[in-house]
Amino acid sequence: MFKVTFQFESGEVVETFATSGENLLEVARKTNVAIDAPCSGNASCGKCRVKLMGGELDSKKTRHISEEEYEQGWRLACVSTIEADVTVMVPDIASAYRSRMKVADLSSQDEVAIFEKTKAGIEEAGIALHNSLRTISITMDIPTLDDTMPDNERLVRALKKATGAERVQLPYTVMCKLPDVLRASDFTVQCVLRTAANGHIFVYDVYEKDADVVIGGLAIDIGTTTVSGLIINMETGEIIGKASSGNGQIRYGADVINRIIESLKPGGKERLQNAVIQETINPMIEQMCRANGFDPKHIYRMCVAGNTTMNHLFAGINADPLRMEPYIPAFFKTNAFYASDLGININPDAHLIIAPNIGSYVGGDITAGTLVSMIWNKPEFSLFIDLGTNGELVFGNSDFLMSCACSAGPAFEGGDISCGMRATDGAIEACVIDRDTMEPTFEIIGESDEKPIGLCGSGIIDVISELYRCGIINPKGKFVREGKRIRHDKYGMGSYVLAFQEDAASVKDIEITEVDIDNFIRAKGAIFSAIRTMLSSLDFDISMVEEVYVAGGIGSGINMENAVNIGMLPDIPLDKFHYIGNSSLSGAYAMLLSTEAEKKTYEVASNMTYLELSAVPTYMDEFVASCFIPHTDNSMFPSVTLK
Amino acid sequence: MFKVTFQFESGEVVETFATSGENLLEVARKTNVAIDAPCSGNASCGKCRVKLMGGELDSKKTRHISEEEYEQGWRLACVSTIEADVTVMVPDIASAYRSRMKVADLSSQDEVAIFEKTKAGIEEAGIALHNSLRTISITMDIPTLDDTMPDNERLVRALKKATGAERVQLPYTVMCKLPDVLRASDFTVQCVLRTAANGHIFVYDVYEKDADVVIGGLAIDIGTTTVSGLIINMETGEIIGKASSGNGQIRYGADVINRIIESLKPGGKERLQNAVIQETINPMIEQMCRANGFDPKHIYRMCVAGNTTMNHLFAGINADPLRMEPYIPAFFKTNAFYASDLGININPDAHLIIAPNIGSYVGGDITAGTLVSMIWNKPEFSLFIDLGTNGELVFGNSDFLMSCACSAGPAFEGGDISCGMRATDGAIEACVIDRDTMEPTFEIIGESDEKPIGLCGSGIIDVISELYRCGIINPKGKFVREGKRIRHDKYGMGSYVLAFQEDAASVKDIEITEVDIDNFIRAKGAIFSAIRTMLSSLDFDISMVEEVYVAGGIGSGINMENAVNIGMLPDIPLDKFHYIGNSSLSGAYAMLLSTEAEKKTYEVASNMTYLELSAVPTYMDEFVASCFIPHTDNSMFPSVTLK
Repeated sequence: MFKVTFQFESGEVVETFATSGENLLEVARKTNVAIDAPCSGNASCGKCRVKLMGGELDSKKTRHISEEEYEQGWRLACVSTIEADVTVMVPDIASAYRSRMKVADLSSQDEVAIFEKTKAGIEEAGIALHNSLRTISITMDIPTLDDTMPDNERLVRALKKATGAERVQLPYTVMCKLPDVLRASDFTVQCVLRTAANGHIFVYDVYEKDADVVIGGLAIDIGTTTVSGLIINMETGEIIGKASSGNGQIRYGADVINRIIESLKPGGKERLQNAVIQETINPMIEQMCRANGFDPKHIYRMCVAGNTTMNHLFAGINADPLRMEPYIPAFFKTNAFYASDLGININPDAHLIIAPNIGSYVGGDITAGTLVSMIWNKPEFSLFIDLGTNGELVFGNSDFLMSCACSAGPAFEGGDISCGMRATDGAIEACVIDRDTMEPTFEIIGESDEKPIGLCGSGIIDVISELYRCGIINPKGKFVREGKRIRHDKYGMGSYVLAFQEDAASVKDIEITEVDIDNFIRAKGAIFSAIRTMLSSLDFDISMVEEVYVAGGIGSGINMENAVNIGMLPDIPLDKFHYIGNSSLSGAYAMLLSTEAEKKTYEVASNMTYLELSAVPTYMDEFVASCFIPHTDNSMFPSVTLK
Repeated sequence: MFKVTFQFESGEVVETFATSGENLLEVARKTNVAIDAPCSGNASCGKCRVKLMGGELDSKKTRHISEEEYEQGWRLACVSTIEADVTVMVPDIASAYRSRMKVADLSSQDEVAIFEKTKAGIEEAGIALHNSLRTISITMDIPTLDDTMPDNERLVRALKKATGAERVQLPYTVMCKLPDVLRASDFTVQCVLRTAANGHIFVYDVYEKDADVVIGGLAIDIGTTTVSGLIINMETGEIIGKASSGNGQIRYGADVINRIIESLKPGGKERLQNAVIQETINPMIEQMCRANGFDPKHIYRMCVAGNTTMNHLFAGINADPLRMEPYIPAFFKTNAFYASDLGININPDAHLIIAPNIGSYVGGDITAGTLVSMIWNKPEFSLFIDLGTNGELVFGNSDFLMSCACSAGPAFEGGDISCGMRATDGAIEACVIDRDTMEPTFEIIGESDEKPIGLCGSGIIDVISELYRCGIINPKGKFVREGKRIRHDKYGMGSYVLAFQEDAASVKDIEITEVDIDNFIRAKGAIFSAIRTMLSSLDFDISMVEEVYVAGGIGSGINMENAVNIGMLPDIPLDKFHYIGNSSLSGAYAMLLSTEAEKKTYEVASNMTYLELSAVPTYMDEFVASCFIPHTDNSMFPSVTLK
């Protein structure tokens, strides 16, 4: 056994032991040391950099570590094996997702406004904001020697009388507390009920007569990268608590395919399920409840929205068929899950609603998002875009809806970008470049005096748009101007330095290279070509798009004009773009609060057709044509060409 | 902290630590050292004797330990507190229930015959031996790129087509294995189904097409003293496995009242529930399954029969209202419990049927037992007696049924008897005394060369009957002959020595005292006076009883003639008595196997009236009159008087 020591920039130290030949990234995972590995340890993303500080480590050389960096001690954890005692430094950027994940500030007015808007939009569409849960006060006869009916029959009889229900079900949890609550409260109690479609009643809980009863509900958006949640009052829709956290599965890979592969290893399904439930959702519930003095057992219903892989891994169900032809999910929708089945720390009988999938690559995050985009209720031809690790699109109006999905890759979230990082503290999220001096001005997430660590998705859009506007790069993303911030390596590869190391909180200069720009161009090209291909398949032209709704956590800092400028979004009037925030979460909120909204989501999902882009012969050509700034066919971007 | 050492006669040693002032019995409980304490540590039963071997122990003196015994080191654990390091010896008799509990030999021909008889009797009554579970083989279309229906919808569609059901429910456990089983088995699978009364289908399990599917069911009789169980094949009724074990709750008290009191202490409900489920039922399930190569997850239904207190404590539900006026149970019947709710290690979705209670003192053991006694289906006026710690009676025929319960106390099980013990190895279970020599001949449970340890219930009946027949005791139970086996203590209290210490495996002579006889007379008097009182309340005379069915584990060795001789059972022709074994277990078996039998039990229960004996003014007089051998009114026992 060898001693392995992890040092953090914060000064924190974690020690563990490992046997000869163990993989350093695996050792970190077992020790709960967060080292970001978007590619799940395949040496392809280059994010799991650590620095050898002492001892020995047997590490392969990779293209991600230069000779000079290797000399300095930089190694990729995923290709390093333990052969002796070793001490490594884990830089902030490698552990960013966990320690520095920017939590969506749901208490801000913007966010509250989004949920208010969601409610208003749904009501406008004629959908009642009403669900099947309610509280009722019940008074029973006090038992005597002449009236010896047992407690459960006594309550059931009284509930039948009060509600007219034919059948009343008391689950085990209620039976367990019933004798005590009845006697503590003189046989007058409050019950939390669910009335089923057939009129039968299920009793979730029983409270003493004077208790302050709030029926809690839990909405969760399971993003591949970020999990967000709300606790709401099921009777009023009021938001009781909010939280957001990195998805604990990140350490098993940044994208769904890597996570599926990880889940196929022995114990993998359980590890991935634990990562999202025990390590992510349950702590979020605890945090929200503690902060708001709410008992998690008073949460009686839960709605989850996530992509198809996320909801399979969340449920601990084999997701492998999702990635293998013919791409069959275990479920589109299911009413089979209860909180106790999955070990979610709320009322064990709480029913779990899952926003419906419509296929392997269009899941509940999109159906829930489509619901709250309201495009299904409008005559205008509208485009709904959810920008995540996967890009999903829905186009249509009140008459039809078509969806498709494209793999944008991790570039929007800073993956595959040399100085890329997720949208956390220290990330450059917006940028302007002076055309003459080529000097950048940028906005950094976090405290005002923070130095930049790297570049997140919205920052990359701005930088590329600005580099192009200033004539620093050409439509192919190659550097065509020179200056103190422009560099070329020995192979002639250009790069632009956003911040020199002395001005950065990074271990090296923060720069964007031609390879980065190329990676990003392919990501934006995937989105734009998907838009084009789907519209063409319907004989639509881009100019016929009347409204665009952009959703996704990644989109929060997005500059729509710059996104158009680089050819990522269609060139239509800017006032047609609407940022609708985390529509997966607001969709889950709507489905939780309103039974009709839940039904409407199923209806929207079942009416949505799915276009498999890879089956469209022209898609690849569209993609190649989109891999320019803004596009090979400039006529598609008239406003950009005018600038 | 002081060191506490428990030594066993077997040579085994258990060591633990305790703080000053801790109660020795509590220390033993925490350490899982089984010391029998039928009175739950109230110093009233005198069963928790241990012998001080070294160190110090602060023990109160009690009437149960003579001066001489105290000198020898004998102490009651329940009145001993730790004040220093101490070593005590735990005699076999004190730990008898756990280490030496005789397990009912269910594999014997007698026992199999009882279940065959149960089945036959039920079928004769026109009740179908059929339940709602079955296996079905289903072949689905194999998915293609043109047929991308998800797994759950595919199976549901196929099941609807095959069964005509309107609704099919797949629970979480099935969803979890579905993708794997479908693909491993080319979309032809076997399903275990339950068809509800409304035609809806619940899928318990899904197996590969070639699997050997056996639908398991579990019948459990939770006796206050002994728990018995069967695993059966739900489609054939065949018995797959059998087991029996002491109820782990015994260490919290021998009778229901002491257990309820124990359950009211902090954490008490959980402790008592754990004792019967985690420590008793789950190990029995494991044992039965291991011995028969059966997977416990293939048990999809369970039926429990037990008295009202037992099924409340089993469910972890407050049983205190059962012992307090107006004596209201939490439930008579309930369909609210599933295996996963109670932590029973079978299929988590297995539904738990509970034989219905009809009141606080007549529970599911009696309703299930009444079912299989078949007295509800006969024109003859029949009496069903379940002899346990509580004695319960049901009288009637196909037109009416009346029940009552009396507290017989622990005497039938060897409690309150100085050399009494439960019916385990080493117990004298039958006895004949020579009228001239007064020498006894007896049968001992266990190996043929075993020396006696004590006296169990059936043995006590025989001894008292023989002592009376031989004129050694008078109708009041006082000794009236002298001899080498007859002794009197300094207060003149007589006793009869069954085995001198040198012929016994006991630490002292095995004898029966006038106090023992008196205790037993009160127990048999409780039963007989209950019979009389219930019959009188219906204007029936004992001679009108046409059949008597005696049930209960305690009854297995019972000599009916001797039981009549001492005035415990009514003096009717001996061929009218039928021993029907553990009718609670065979009733649970019937309810499990047959949905109609289950319904019939509810019907029998709801038609059964209950007589509260304590509310009958003449009951106390009847009881007093019954506390003689055979009775103060000898005319009730004409055959006995003739002997």
